[in-house]
Amino acid sequence: MSGWLRIVGLGPGSEQQVTPEVSAVLAEATDVVGYVPYVERVAPRVGLVRHGSDNREEIQRAEQALTMAADGRRVAVVSSGDPGVFAMASAVFEALEVGQVEWRGLDIQVLPGISAMLAASARAGAPLGHDFCCINLSDNLKPWALIEKRLRLAAEADFAMAFYNPRSKARPEGFARTLEVLRDACGPERLIIFARAVSAPDESIRVTTLEQATPEMADMRTLVIVGSSQTRLIERSGSKASEPWVYTPRSVGAESQASTSSRA
Amino acid sequence: MSGWLRIVGLGPGSEQQVTPEVSAVLAEATDVVGYVPYVERVAPRVGLVRHGSDNREEIQRAEQALTMAADGRRVAVVSSGDPGVFAMASAVFEALEVGQVEWRGLDIQVLPGISAMLAASARAGAPLGHDFCCINLSDNLKPWALIEKRLRLAAEADFAMAFYNPRSKARPEGFARTLEVLRDACGPERLIIFARAVSAPDESIRVTTLEQATPEMADMRTLVIVGSSQTRLIERSGSKASEPWVYTPRSVGAESQASTSSRA
Repeated sequence: MSGWLRIVGLGPGSEQQVTPEVSAVLAEATDVVGYVPYVERVAPRVGLVRHGSDNREEIQRAEQALTMAADGRRVAVVSSGDPGVFAMASAVFEALEVGQVEWRGLDIQVLPGISAMLAASARAGAPLGHDFCCINLSDNLKPWALIEKRLRLAAEADFAMAFYNPRSKARPEGFARTLEVLRDACGPERLIIFARAVSAPDESIRVTTLEQATPEMADMRTLVIVGSSQTRLIERSGSKASEPWVYTPRSVGAESQASTSSRA
Repeated sequence: MSGWLRIVGLGPGSEQQVTPEVSAVLAEATDVVGYVPYVERVAPRVGLVRHGSDNREEIQRAEQALTMAADGRRVAVVSSGDPGVFAMASAVFEALEVGQVEWRGLDIQVLPGISAMLAASARAGAPLGHDFCCINLSDNLKPWALIEKRLRLAAEADFAMAFYNPRSKARPEGFARTLEVLRDACGPERLIIFARAVSAPDESIRVTTLEQATPEMADMRTLVIVGSSQTRLIERSGSKASEPWVYTPRSVGAESQASTSSRA
């Protein structure tokens, strides 16, 4: 039997958010390749070799996976969340493009996963319920000037915004600058959500405003969502009351639609 | 036992992309509420009442679901894809905000699903592998002028773009105007993907350029993705060769990174 390569998303952390098709691939694979903490989410078993590697080794990891698939192995490349959102799928295609010509005939599939932004949005309510954008704030991958340009254009377009990789020890300043740009472009009252470790035991969701937000509220396990001008809060009541719900109406002018309906 | 409300995503179509936590909710629910074709994806069983309703009745459907949960029922509101992306989650919160005060104490959770844009992106390769935006092209929900403004700003930001609801019988002109705006803002060579009925038996993926794209390539079952200036193709080879892979590198300048690594 010839080999294959599957680039799969494990979702944000809970096994309850791993799709059946991804579980089936992991059960059939001979090799699992990925960043160490993601590879460790796949249980060891006889016949499975787990190849964990460090962060920032994405291209080497992709070449390793393609080489093994070409050798007839059944290889699963694992990412957290969705593999197509700032994760391993693009790295594999980068390696494929410049790699051996015969790799282009390999049986390759990308299998989607629950992305961190969708999981975080669900926990908070529905802040991404209208038009939005998704930006990786790491300036390892692009110049800061491009990040700032995109932040300002996204604010002008009145998109809600989901931010990956807001802050790391190596880049302590970038997120402070992001908050400054957003306060300038969106005003101090704009809502911001810090969703940390979504679906893990230490999950936390914090809702505040740009005025109250500080850089320390984010780390590399935090997905940050900034609302559009239309995004708003609903206070919860009762014994389970915690953070308010945050949602963005589906349409510009949705308030009147809902009000009319409930009066009818 | 008191009632609850779960707003769940069924994914784009295949049962293999429904998460275990959503399947568990559907197995425990007393009532399933949603647009008819989505409700019909939940198999009938004793003890389950399926409440299908028409499109554009989202607010009435949300009020019905909240009322039943307040009456002690276990209610699942179902959306295709992810419930937080142009789907029922925002509609439920719109109804909650203007509805009965006691609804704010209800046990409500949103459970994410594989969104159409992530499923379509996976089938094509990794076109959303760098910064991107997501726009609903229906002008039922906002004025066309705002859509055009967002398209132009997204092009200036050099986002890849995912488009929901590109075209319907009631709005045959909007997508033709979208293509005109994009050709003007992005140039004729920019890549565009038409992903129709992803994960269903009649799935089709078509990759072309803005110059070659025509409005008839999209309908209401089509998710459209337009690449950024960096998005590119990899031709496949071998007996399974079909549409080329489409991907966006993770970083501005990724090509040199991959080339360097593969030479090492």
